[in-house]
Amino acid sequence: MNKADLIAQIKQKSSFLCVGLDTDLEKIPAHLLELEDPIFEFNKAIIDATAEFAVAYKPNIAFYEALGPKGWASLKKTLDYIPKEIFTIADAKRGDIGNTSKLYAKAFFEQMDFDSITVAPYMGRDSVEPFLEFEDKWVILLALTSNVGSQDFQLLTDKNETPLFKNVLRTSQNWGNEDNLMYVVGATRGEKIGEVRKEVPDHFFLVPGVGAQGGSLEEVAEYGMTKDCGLLVNSSRGIIYASNGKDFAEKAQKAARSLQKEMAALIEKYMG
Amino acid sequence: MNKADLIAQIKQKSSFLCVGLDTDLEKIPAHLLELEDPIFEFNKAIIDATAEFAVAYKPNIAFYEALGPKGWASLKKTLDYIPKEIFTIADAKRGDIGNTSKLYAKAFFEQMDFDSITVAPYMGRDSVEPFLEFEDKWVILLALTSNVGSQDFQLLTDKNETPLFKNVLRTSQNWGNEDNLMYVVGATRGEKIGEVRKEVPDHFFLVPGVGAQGGSLEEVAEYGMTKDCGLLVNSSRGIIYASNGKDFAEKAQKAARSLQKEMAALIEKYMG
Repeated sequence: MNKADLIAQIKQKSSFLCVGLDTDLEKIPAHLLELEDPIFEFNKAIIDATAEFAVAYKPNIAFYEALGPKGWASLKKTLDYIPKEIFTIADAKRGDIGNTSKLYAKAFFEQMDFDSITVAPYMGRDSVEPFLEFEDKWVILLALTSNVGSQDFQLLTDKNETPLFKNVLRTSQNWGNEDNLMYVVGATRGEKIGEVRKEVPDHFFLVPGVGAQGGSLEEVAEYGMTKDCGLLVNSSRGIIYASNGKDFAEKAQKAARSLQKEMAALIEKYMG
Repeated sequence: MNKADLIAQIKQKSSFLCVGLDTDLEKIPAHLLELEDPIFEFNKAIIDATAEFAVAYKPNIAFYEALGPKGWASLKKTLDYIPKEIFTIADAKRGDIGNTSKLYAKAFFEQMDFDSITVAPYMGRDSVEPFLEFEDKWVILLALTSNVGSQDFQLLTDKNETPLFKNVLRTSQNWGNEDNLMYVVGATRGEKIGEVRKEVPDHFFLVPGVGAQGGSLEEVAEYGMTKDCGLLVNSSRGIIYASNGKDFAEKAQKAARSLQKEMAALIEKYMG
């Protein structure tokens, strides 16, 4: 998917909601466990219930990989079920030397047909570039994550007081551009998002950590939104596990609709 | 596997050779492609031919993941075929927020029974610790890699002229110890390995980049070897693709034996 199509969809739905499909056999409603592929059945119901409000779906690959070959089959079926106009993110956090990253790119962009993949920057340019060689596919590079451990290295500053995450932002702009490169930017503090936005005024951000992880949507929009929106804000547990009863899809829809409404107001306020 | 068992095996075989199972359908001998599971058949023959000389096997997960569910099945069969006394490394370079890393840990330590997994440090402590909670399992943390892109961030220095890879070494020693934590240390320059060895005198290193990637085994041993060896040196292409004819296993064995002989001499010289 290209940037224009993504923006068009955001405008059409008045939403920048990404639904995280972190689907866990231990958390999905018990009545689904009797079915042949409970993971897919759960995802299908969630997609049906939320597609109207979501512009992106993001399966975290760990949840599928942990189930072995069966999990990969559920992932593939899920991906194929997502409506084509919705952006898809393989939250895989891969990254390896060049020819190996090429294989990961093939796995997620060819074997499966994801629009994008999250990539870890530690190994540098030649670990990221193979993903950037696919047309209309995106790298979403980890910049500033929302977990406690993000402070261990991402905030380490160099001689010029530049923290590592800013060096990642600056250096990686020589690798890709706003049409094939986004950044993961945690939502734990609004002003941090503003710092990142100054570095990369036009790139899209994938923002985890709103909702269950505690970030404020209003702050994310205030500090991060651009004229093209420039944001995909993820919610996983707050939507997909809104209920663990038979009404899980209905409750997921309600949660997604509620977030979309907030987002519509923020688009109105900041995107102008 | 615990450290004592690994050291015992190194001493018994006079070898610190790790064979990288980067098995690629495009590179394996054509006659195998007719079989039902060419990847497994290739690996099986390579393992049979080299187990006498190798103390570790390291499948790079990308090669299997790129083949979809079938690839995972080949990987599982390969892992189950490796003799139990040989150390196994899932070269997966994973790393995610805590509960997700836990799932990756389950995938590689429980679903499959790898002894260790390579992990990327960018997300910090809570992305690594879940892997360290498994008994007799190991994290092999990326410190200084051997690719060109390693210079982009790993060598960035802070105010005290400490490069990022040393900060990774220092900080991560609060997370694990020499019994459950190793480091990936590229072999492109011997003196760099010496720098790392000063930081972590007793931890094992996994050294890629000897052979096809051009590092010198003699230098690696000179700068990196400890009284317990402290080294696993990987060779992939130089062994597994020594020939692409019907004699591939025989040629792989020859290449592995030749490396093992060099290693035996270095153990004699430096391990004291």
